[in-house]
Amino acid sequence: MTSSRRLGIDVGGTKCMAVVLDPGGAVIAEQRRQTPKSSGAIIEAVAELAGALQPWDSIGVGMPGLVTRTGVLRAAPNLVGIEDLAVGKLLGDRLACVVHVDSDATCAAGAEWKVGAARGVDDFVMVTLGTGIGGGVVVGGALVRGANGFAGEIGHMVVDPDGPPCPCGRRGCWERYASGSGLVWLANTFRDGRGVVRAAELAGGDPAAVRGQHVADAAREGDSDALEVVGEYGRWVALGLVNLTNVLDPEMFVLGGGLAQDAELFLTPIREWFGQLLYAPELRPHPVIAFAQLGERAGAIGAALLAEVH
Amino acid sequence: MTSSRRLGIDVGGTKCMAVVLDPGGAVIAEQRRQTPKSSGAIIEAVAELAGALQPWDSIGVGMPGLVTRTGVLRAAPNLVGIEDLAVGKLLGDRLACVVHVDSDATCAAGAEWKVGAARGVDDFVMVTLGTGIGGGVVVGGALVRGANGFAGEIGHMVVDPDGPPCPCGRRGCWERYASGSGLVWLANTFRDGRGVVRAAELAGGDPAAVRGQHVADAAREGDSDALEVVGEYGRWVALGLVNLTNVLDPEMFVLGGGLAQDAELFLTPIREWFGQLLYAPELRPHPVIAFAQLGERAGAIGAALLAEVH
Repeated sequence: MTSSRRLGIDVGGTKCMAVVLDPGGAVIAEQRRQTPKSSGAIIEAVAELAGALQPWDSIGVGMPGLVTRTGVLRAAPNLVGIEDLAVGKLLGDRLACVVHVDSDATCAAGAEWKVGAARGVDDFVMVTLGTGIGGGVVVGGALVRGANGFAGEIGHMVVDPDGPPCPCGRRGCWERYASGSGLVWLANTFRDGRGVVRAAELAGGDPAAVRGQHVADAAREGDSDALEVVGEYGRWVALGLVNLTNVLDPEMFVLGGGLAQDAELFLTPIREWFGQLLYAPELRPHPVIAFAQLGERAGAIGAALLAEVH
Repeated sequence: MTSSRRLGIDVGGTKCMAVVLDPGGAVIAEQRRQTPKSSGAIIEAVAELAGALQPWDSIGVGMPGLVTRTGVLRAAPNLVGIEDLAVGKLLGDRLACVVHVDSDATCAAGAEWKVGAARGVDDFVMVTLGTGIGGGVVVGGALVRGANGFAGEIGHMVVDPDGPPCPCGRRGCWERYASGSGLVWLANTFRDGRGVVRAAELAGGDPAAVRGQHVADAAREGDSDALEVVGEYGRWVALGLVNLTNVLDPEMFVLGGGLAQDAELFLTPIREWFGQLLYAPELRPHPVIAFAQLGERAGAIGAALLAEVH
């Protein structure tokens, strides 16, 4: 049963975004505010957004971290000092209704599945290439949460046990190479640390200021070093997608994150390396690899849809 | 609805095993024969086993390789020259009934799920540590086949892109390190190729004759080199289990293969490394890691259960 007006709130490390969806899935209201620093203030901020956007018939909330199946935020790398926050229970008591809670990555996957790039696809993986890598997994027409609700932490698949250290405490996690930050790391360590000179120029001359966008811009200009880094980045992205394919054999990958602005630049090497790294590539159609469609609103839209996709 | 007598046939690289299950899942008849070399002879052999074990009410067949969702064996590393064999259709025509076909690893997972180590567990991964590594994935109470039927090829997850070459054509596949063959490789390359001397002694003095069992025997005797290799092997097994946990967050892993004879020897380092390599290990109960219960009959029992778990 589709609720008539569905409210979704995506709590991010810096801002909260709230949307109201009509029965067809279109955004009919939207509001943003900064994310406060303390647990109590975050709950209060979400409740205020919910009040400001009334009326609504259902509510879902996406949180940036590990969320249990009972709606508890266990840990959140981008919300300092916040742990074991019973988001579902606290908001449910406050608003006197059922509040669906899941991780932002799971919400984004649900959104792309229901109203975005993966509409009608019942086996796909959403891969968000940002500071780290977030994931959402849909298998057989259902979002996979896992025993504890922690499925989809695909950025911490280890792809090189002797690789660079990850803030998580291990080495060689996929997100060290294949996230947006990984692209910058590959650029800065290029040719034994000489880096991609043109990217540094575009960053105002400061190598420490290089972002993914500068590397992409340099590559689009035709800079050969930047193109080489983009190719190497494509290899690392593809390697993780191949690993996921070996486990799940999905129909599609949806890539989210800022790189979507330069989709073709990145998709070409990703698809090429995917074919080279896949097991038995000649025996199957390859999964579709495409960028997400919903941009920064994916999390909030997915939160609004949680009541349905739960 | 449970069929009264269910026939399952597991076609292996060297032998075929057939079992008949009673309604409770107990094996009430069993027959074996060698696996012939040609496609036509394999179909004939399976049909003969089916004839010899009559009466039965349903039939399932497990094949050693990549099986499509429509029962076609696309490729089989251990059946030379056999490809694109329409097992389901050919046997269905021959026997005039529906014949369920899936990969041997998926069958083994179904068997351990329904009548073995993972009874009642709806989210688990079966990992068979043999010459390679086979996998079967159960998510939310359903076997995961994937878009092409190729889900569960977990042995070809790349865990070190600069690692040793794999017969599949890539480098550093998980099964290079963590299969039964991987254990032997770790032993033979130990200390720059000096190898585990005691294991070679147990193999009759010939380092080329060392098998996993010799390494395990040496470790159980207390040989420090063998124990070090078993520890290193445990690290590689754990690394892949951690990667799978980051994707799926399962309740349990069931390990199959010959190592089950020395379960505790291997489980201790695997569990220890699992805790060290897992993302956010302190925030969740760890999945149960246990060895399989059905031994070499798992594939045939699972084939017999395909009609139900499909």
